[in-house]
Amino acid sequence: MAQQADITAMRRAVELAARGLGATSPNPVVGCVITDASGHQVGEGWHQRAGGPHAEVHALREAGVLARGGTAYVTLEPCNHTGRTGPCAQALVEAGVSRVVYAVGDPNPQATGGADTLREAGVTVEQGLLEDEADAVNTAWLTSVRRGRPFVRWKYAATLDGRIAAADGTSRWITSAESRADVHRLRAEADAVVVGSGTARADDPHLAVRGIDGAVQPLRVVVDTEATAVKPGARILDDAAPTLIAIAEDAETTLTEVVRLPRAARGLSVPALLDALHARGVRSVLLEGGPTLAGAFVAAGAVDQVVGYLAPVLLGAGPQALADAGISTITEALRLDITETVRIGPDLRITATFKGA
Amino acid sequence: MAQQADITAMRRAVELAARGLGATSPNPVVGCVITDASGHQVGEGWHQRAGGPHAEVHALREAGVLARGGTAYVTLEPCNHTGRTGPCAQALVEAGVSRVVYAVGDPNPQATGGADTLREAGVTVEQGLLEDEADAVNTAWLTSVRRGRPFVRWKYAATLDGRIAAADGTSRWITSAESRADVHRLRAEADAVVVGSGTARADDPHLAVRGIDGAVQPLRVVVDTEATAVKPGARILDDAAPTLIAIAEDAETTLTEVVRLPRAARGLSVPALLDALHARGVRSVLLEGGPTLAGAFVAAGAVDQVVGYLAPVLLGAGPQALADAGISTITEALRLDITETVRIGPDLRITATFKGA
Repeated sequence: MAQQADITAMRRAVELAARGLGATSPNPVVGCVITDASGHQVGEGWHQRAGGPHAEVHALREAGVLARGGTAYVTLEPCNHTGRTGPCAQALVEAGVSRVVYAVGDPNPQATGGADTLREAGVTVEQGLLEDEADAVNTAWLTSVRRGRPFVRWKYAATLDGRIAAADGTSRWITSAESRADVHRLRAEADAVVVGSGTARADDPHLAVRGIDGAVQPLRVVVDTEATAVKPGARILDDAAPTLIAIAEDAETTLTEVVRLPRAARGLSVPALLDALHARGVRSVLLEGGPTLAGAFVAAGAVDQVVGYLAPVLLGAGPQALADAGISTITEALRLDITETVRIGPDLRITATFKGA
Repeated sequence: MAQQADITAMRRAVELAARGLGATSPNPVVGCVITDASGHQVGEGWHQRAGGPHAEVHALREAGVLARGGTAYVTLEPCNHTGRTGPCAQALVEAGVSRVVYAVGDPNPQATGGADTLREAGVTVEQGLLEDEADAVNTAWLTSVRRGRPFVRWKYAATLDGRIAAADGTSRWITSAESRADVHRLRAEADAVVVGSGTARADDPHLAVRGIDGAVQPLRVVVDTEATAVKPGARILDDAAPTLIAIAEDAETTLTEVVRLPRAARGLSVPALLDALHARGVRSVLLEGGPTLAGAFVAAGAVDQVVGYLAPVLLGAGPQALADAGISTITEALRLDITETVRIGPDLRITATFKGA
């Protein structure tokens, strides 16, 4: 049985980790709390950006000599390798910490081994406290490591009957201002925001994060197979955030920020797109595409999580949130787990996560 | 400020009222708690069936002489008229109750006036405690009084993307066993369960309540305009519950339990159907129809509440929960309020209620 003090400290570490979402790729988010020998918190920190100090280093700096004989609570196994910063396992040993409690083991073969290093140095090591919560806050990074491609979260906004617009195409506003603001939080947590040519043509979207202080802007990506949807002067080409237009290998364009990808049966190859983004350090994608692009991602097995904003509205006609995903019978359906439901203004936000993710 | 003891007693009265759902039409559900002069509960009761004693009478019988000088908590204004039972206001006066707290005023012109009668007899009367909760438990009956037709609750089961079946028509099972069991509770609360000819043809449904002890079976109704969907031997024609087949005035049939109604532009007139049900004492309808019938009800302004069972499943193709409701642009959309969300097994049950209801 975990002590309440341990739970409190680890829960704080998970909260701290969440502050890094959207800013640490290709690294995970990590939070750390340090208590002294008598159990009082003397330091805390989180990994704030790739290339910057790890969570443990921030927390150890704050704790100073008070870390000696104390406990470090870390959401992820302390790293064992020397990257742009030194190994955290060694730093914890040198600070004289006598006990390390971490929630989730490091699945990254380059970084794992921290627990062994700590034990060899005589530190008491415990794993698994609040593992589910720590796993959830890091789900994007953990999924990207396990799958070797970015974590993909598909966001949609629809009526109770699954329509994203009325029969005449009008859709402003199905969901509320609160829901639309919440989407900016999702963008801020993602490394890249992806839409298709249909959305680019219909909405001329901007896709940058607005209204969130300190947010790291995501890479804005348009899947524009024929290189015809994004025209010079499009709002997405401004300098508010970086932009990448994914086009077919044989498409012609005057745009410069493009990546050329192989075609699929319809549109571009989704795996090739995700590989290209992964190579650019993208570990999490917010897919804001319309029904066609979303269908292509589902068909490619490339949707890890769905975030649906459901408005208490009925239409009875109009385009669906999701179009052809290659599923023709019920046994082929994509089945997920509902992992969260939250009221957002008058709407309901449902998060469902792929069981295998 | 209401005292905590008052709130506790009224909350119990609301719980008691809910026990009558589905069994009291054309009467409301009502719960009653009686405390003695020192505030201890000495009696409780609820209206169990039309023609039986009212909630107050049950509670007064249990309290006996201990009601003298005490308080009666009632979810609905005590009635003032002599129907099949005597007026409850008079019964409370005769029992010597010194204070009556009721939640919702009686909107029924035949029954109202109870509060005045009590005051004239020197009883302290307070109204409004837990009014929202008491209103919610009685929403079907209150809506039927206000609108002069049965309350209509539309139930559907769909994927996150709003599909009720896959492209090939397979749908077993989109939602879980838990959700399907929960639907029987909705049936038990309703006076009538309504489906259309499409559902009758495709599923040969039974529509009776199973698995709920003591449930009053609802009237099973099929809207079968041409009198071609329900054949002799259909499961719905068994004796598990009463059945009514609604057909067009000019349709030919050998069935006997039919009601003939005027045609609408498509199918039968929804208002005429609801009038016919209301005349039979039906105060609440559970609409389990497919997308076509549901669309006709929405188009007729005859959906008061929506209960959606959402499964964390994606299909990308297949029939929608709701078909043409005569809505072509976003400003015409039917807007509701989400009034409840509950996890049912792996699914999510969303209840949304029409703002004007």
